[in-house]
Parts: sequence; structure tokens; C-alpha cells
Amino acid sequence: MNDTRRRRVPRPVREQQIIDAAIRVFAKRGYHAASVDEIAELAGISKPMIYLYLDSKEGLFIACLRREAARLVAAFQDAAGHAPSPELRLRAGLLAFFTFVTEHRDSWVVLHRQASELSPAIAAELTQARRAVMAEVAGLVRVGIVESGGPAQAGEQDADFVTYALVGAADSLTDWMAKHPDEPPERITLRLMNMVWVGMRNVLGGEVWAPAEDG
Amino acid sequence: MNDTRRRRVPRPVREQQIIDAAIRVFAKRGYHAASVDEIAELAGISKPMIYLYLDSKEGLFIACLRREAARLVAAFQDAAGHAPSPELRLRAGLLAFFTFVTEHRDSWVVLHRQASELSPAIAAELTQARRAVMAEVAGLVRVGIVESGGPAQAGEQDADFVTYALVGAADSLTDWMAKHPDEPPERITLRLMNMVWVGMRNVLGGEVWAPAEDG
Repeated sequence: MNDTRRRRVPRPVREQQIIDAAIRVFAKRGYHAASVDEIAELAGISKPMIYLYLDSKEGLFIACLRREAARLVAAFQDAAGHAPSPELRLRAGLLAFFTFVTEHRDSWVVLHRQASELSPAIAAELTQARRAVMAEVAGLVRVGIVESGGPAQAGEQDADFVTYALVGAADSLTDWMAKHPDEPPERITLRLMNMVWVGMRNVLGGEVWAPAEDG
Repeated sequence: MNDTRRRRVPRPVREQQIIDAAIRVFAKRGYHAASVDEIAELAGISKPMIYLYLDSKEGLFIACLRREAARLVAAFQDAAGHAPSPELRLRAGLLAFFTFVTEHRDSWVVLHRQASELSPAIAAELTQARRAVMAEVAGLVRVGIVESGGPAQAGEQDADFVTYALVGAADSLTDWMAKHPDEPPERITLRLMNMVWVGMRNVLGGEVWAPAEDG
């Protein structure tokens, strides 16, 4: 009877429950130490059922990566898409990112802190996730150049440079956030905007910094 | 006779030769796929000798990490220590970093791209290396605040924030460099200075960015 009830839960719903549990266990234990037994117990689903649905521990991990990367990108797009100017779009995108990391710390640990050398399949998935995020930011940066009256043909290379620097900074700041758990995402976003917004426009405008005291 | 000659090479010299070879092999193959046989062959040293000197593949990897992290920190300190102002010290430090990555791509791959989940000992070593670099940058940022007439008691938290953002940006830009191998470290440094210098001073001065069009 109990078994029959269980089987009535549609597969997609079950899969999401498994992924929820897996993210918590992977974040807590790390990939190698995580056991499918613990995940099964937390999800309230039998271990064979997990293997049936998601194939292997690796398949499970990849399903976690895929879902959380898609959520992160969606949150970023959704936030950035509704702001009226490039500056505000960037702020909204960054805020969505820092909010995601604050609210889904486990997901972030899985997406980010887990080794990229775990397996070639996982490494490929991580690369893809990172590329998707980069593409979003790069799009924002490029549109920003044109809309803010910058050179329409601003170096693709410069836009790419700014994107890498910005994504790296945001990425690294998630470690800072772990040390300052009470800092609201809004303040982190403001600080980062403050640090990079003017300078980004300089770089994209092709200006080159020269040290004040240089001979 | 040949054996006798070999034994005359002092141990510290031999160890450096082994580490040189190991860095090349680890960078090329990744930790898991790298074989001590290949390292031994490249170093022209017998495999038992490698185990005698550096204990294990893990010990070998840690020796690589340690030496290259120390070199990177030394290059940074040396460069930054000789410039006459905070601004120029930061530029010199960044230039030293990007030059190191350009000239020692293999070392950077080993230091950076290899997984932090390889083993607890390796993860600890990596954390320590990262902390050493962070401490250098943080020191530069803090001295920079005071010397450039900023608030002497500028939030420790703000300085730390700027450090994380800056290190993350520089870190991420090493991926950009891999895509643009002909870009000289000088230009990368100038672009990054251009992007962050003014904004850094704002953050450290406690200024908060406000969007132009915000209601």
C-alpha cells in the first residue's frame, strides 16, 4: 500500500526530490565522501530507484549541476531583463547572483567548490555552466557599451576582458560572503558596483590608465 | 661510474630537478593521470629515488605547490616593494603576477587548475598558498588607503572586500590570457588598473555607488 502510493508520485517530481537531497549531501560531504545511501535516506527514496532514475553517483551530481546552473542563469536573466538601463541591469544581475549564493549556499558549494577534476563528464558540465554565466554577463556588458553611448564597435576583446574580471571578482566575493554571513546581498552589490562601474566604462571606452607619478 | 656521478649531485639540486619535471607532467596530464614513471624519466632520475626524496605522488605534488606558490609570492613582494606609491605598487604587483602566469604557465596550471578536492593535505596546501597571496594583496590595499590620504581607520571589512574582488578578477583573467596568448602582461595590468583603481578608492573611502536613474 505504502509502496503503491510512492509509485504514484510522478517521476519528474521524484527526481527533483532526489536532486534536493543530493545537493545537501554533496555540499556537506564533498563528492567523494557523499554516499548514495545518505541521499536516498534524506530523499525518502530507495537506492535502486535513485540508480534507476539518475544512473550513477556521477549522473546524480551532473543533474544537480545542471539544475542549479539553470536556476542561477534564470535568476540573473530575470533580474537583469527588467531594469531600464545598462547600469541598473548590471546591478540587478549582480544582486540576483549574490542573493542566489546567500539563499542557496549548498547549491553554490556544489556548483563552485567541488573539484573540476572529478571526472571528464563533470568537468565538461562545469565548463558549460560557467560559459552560460559568462555569456549572460558578456551580453550585458556589450549592450551596456552601446546603450550608454560608448563606441558601438568597442573591442570585443575589451568587453570580454571586463566580463572575465567581473565574473572572477563576483566569484571570489562569494568566499568573502562566507566570512561575513550577515552582510546583505544588496550591500555587496553596491560595493562591487562602486568598485567597477566607472572603471568598466573607461576600459570599454578604450581609455588606458596611466599612473599619476609615472615618468 | 655513472651511478657514482649521479649520487654526487646534492639532494637539494636533485629535488629541484624532480619538481621541475613534475610540474610539467602534472600540468600536462592532470594529477590523476600523471605517472611518477613519466616524471622520473623526464627528470632523468630513478623512480625509487623520487619516492625516497619526496615520499609519494602526493608529496611530489605538494612540493610543486609549495615551491611555485613561494615563487609567486616572492615575485609579487619583490615587484611591489620597489614602487614609490600605493598606486604604482599595486601596478607592479599585478604586473609581476601576470608576468608569472605568462612565463610559468605550467606552474599556474598546477597551482590553480588542479582540483582542491584531490586530498585533504593538498587542499590544505592550496588554501595556505591562496591565503599567502591574499595577505600580500590585502597588505598593499591597506597601506594604500593610508598613504593615499584615505581614512586611516578605513573599514578592515572594506579592505578585505576589495582584496577578494581584486584577487578574483586577476585569477579569472588568467583564463582570459589563455585565450589571448599574445596579449602582453603590461597591457593586462593597465586594463585592470583602469578598471579598478578609481573604484577601489571609492570603496575604501566608504563611498557608496548609487545608480544615476534610481528613484
